[in-house]
Amino acid sequence: MKPRYFISVIGGSRASAADLAIAEEVGRELAEAGVAVICGGLGGVMEAACKGAVEAGGLTIGILPGEHRETANAYVQIPIVTGMGFTRNSIVAKSGQAIIAIGGSYGTLSEIAYARLAGLPIIGIDTWEMSRRGEAEDFIIRAIDAEEAVRLAIAKIDENT
Amino acid sequence: MKPRYFISVIGGSRASAADLAIAEEVGRELAEAGVAVICGGLGGVMEAACKGAVEAGGLTIGILPGEHRETANAYVQIPIVTGMGFTRNSIVAKSGQAIIAIGGSYGTLSEIAYARLAGLPIIGIDTWEMSRRGEAEDFIIRAIDAEEAVRLAIAKIDENT
Amino acid sequence: MKPRYFISVIGGSRASAADLAIAEEVGRELAEAGVAVICGGLGGVMEAACKGAVEAGGLTIGILPGEHRETANAYVQIPIVTGMGFTRNSIVAKSGQAIIAIGGSYGTLSEIAYARLAGLPIIGIDTWEMSRRGEAEDFIIRAIDAEEAVRLAIAKIDENT
Amino acid sequence: MKPRYFISVIGGSRASAADLAIAEEVGRELAEAGVAVICGGLGGVMEAACKGAVEAGGLTIGILPGEHRETANAYVQIPIVTGMGFTRNSIVAKSGQAIIAIGGSYGTLSEIAYARLAGLPIIGIDTWEMSRRGEAEDFIIRAIDAEEAVRLAIAKIDENT
Repeated sequence: MKPRYFISVIGGSRASAADLAIAEEVGRELAEAGVAVICGGLGGVMEAACKGAVEAGGLTIGILPGEHRETANAYVQIPIVTGMGFTRNSIVAKSGQAIIAIGGSYGTLSEIAYARLAGLPIIGIDTWEMSRRGEAEDFIIRAIDAEEAVRLAIAKIDENT
Repeated sequence: MKPRYFISVIGGSRASAADLAIAEEVGRELAEAGVAVICGGLGGVMEAACKGAVEAGGLTIGILPGEHRETANAYVQIPIVTGMGFTRNSIVAKSGQAIIAIGGSYGTLSEIAYARLAGLPIIGIDTWEMSRRGEAEDFIIRAIDAEEAVRLAIAKIDENT
Repeated sequence: MKPRYFISVIGGSRASAADLAIAEEVGRELAEAGVAVICGGLGGVMEAACKGAVEAGGLTIGILPGEHRETANAYVQIPIVTGMGFTRNSIVAKSGQAIIAIGGSYGTLSEIAYARLAGLPIIGIDTWEMSRRGEAEDFIIRAIDAEEAVRLAIAKIDENT
Repeated sequence: MKPRYFISVIGGSRASAADLAIAEEVGRELAEAGVAVICGGLGGVMEAACKGAVEAGGLTIGILPGEHRETANAYVQIPIVTGMGFTRNSIVAKSGQAIIAIGGSYGTLSEIAYARLAGLPIIGIDTWEMSRRGEAEDFIIRAIDAEEAVRLAIAKIDENT
């Protein structure tokens, strides 16, 4: 019953069709690999990842910003009710053993920062790039598609455990 | 895969042998009823409830105060890493659809208060009693044993849903 | 500029006229003693305590549950914006060096529990009483009026520092 | 007594001598403009900003990650005790009416993201640059020195109020 690993999938609650397709495939491949999906529990990339996972028989956990479990998307199996708004983003990031970021906006940026603070591997598909004082600071491992992202994330956890 | 209900089991990380036996039975009966156990993820009542649940094939979720998933007790299947210390108690309380309090100390008292703020049913076995200005304020439904506590908690959720 | 001490004043956002009068006097006496008032930043006891403090030239800090500083009562000089809802109660409790509880409901109960977890002195006027297994567990120092509450709170901090 | 405005000054707890000098000047100029300094309460940029502010007669507020007020730097006048670790970063960001970021690392990145989520003006000196899909996403207003940063931050708040 215990999942092999936990991976957080992060990205915008509003997302392009391309990002949603990737998120759904990421969810499916994580489930097929026996990995549970953690996310922020709402729509967009979060919902697509949960949908992919659930349809492949996986486990999905949604760390909700609001006060009510009913705000979770329909594919969240385990809703965690924080009532903390975006402040819950640090929990989304830290509860994974690795992070897969797909596109995303400022919430995703905060989760990338928190994953980095926690020393977690971060895999990114078409997501934020950062630099400081003109120098790229690329601690994100870039993947070109869902398959590669899932493979890299699992390999990184394997290395760490 | 989705559990029928989620019930938070709260109580001290140090607990009497009697409380631990009750917690383990509560965990087992929740699992047998298809209900997932949510707890604070550490030792004592939390661990006993998770042990009972896991041994009966149930699902266990631990909302951890610390920064590391390794701090979860051995029977937590789904660790949620908050890094928020006791401030995570509100999440433990709110993520259940009902609360079962077994004995407990000040952390348990804070969770009882949060469950009440969220309007959740609270079942208590040998736990805190409260009064204001000399008048008992007993919003806790008292149970005499594990079997009754689980039965009352599920009945209350059935009523609300 | 640095206040002599910080004391959290807690109590209901809806409160009796008697409680409000006590809260206002507590705020005034704290200010006169050079002590800053910390509170949850909203109405009722929180507002009355801030009003008393401000009118006596004191300093007031409101730890707000919402996302907007405009939700603070008119007497909060320093609004802290948490966006965490009632989960901010632990911060209200822990940011004081002592706690004065006036009446109050479940939010107040959670703050009493958090103050106790943090080992802080708790002074109560007509507030919660707790017992476990039939035995009073009175870690709250009872005061009969504002003057005594403020005096006891300051004396306790003096002892600890 | 009520400060004219509140501005959060963010940056690394380890920082270059140049960043520390800028932070101290930012603190001093904020104080001279009647603006209170909010920060994370620890060392580095946080301490330098508080030092500058206090020496110019200003007000300083430290939102501490730990459980003890004693962890605040020596120039924090108002310590807020969260016990939430880095999760407190969202409070640091949101409690300002504008943000001044000086250099900084991943914690600073999370605060920039939170300030953006809250719609606050962000002024940056030698801090993070972000892009998405190869396109610069520069919502940070760049300043070349402390004087310009303070002037821009205050002007932005004036616009919004």
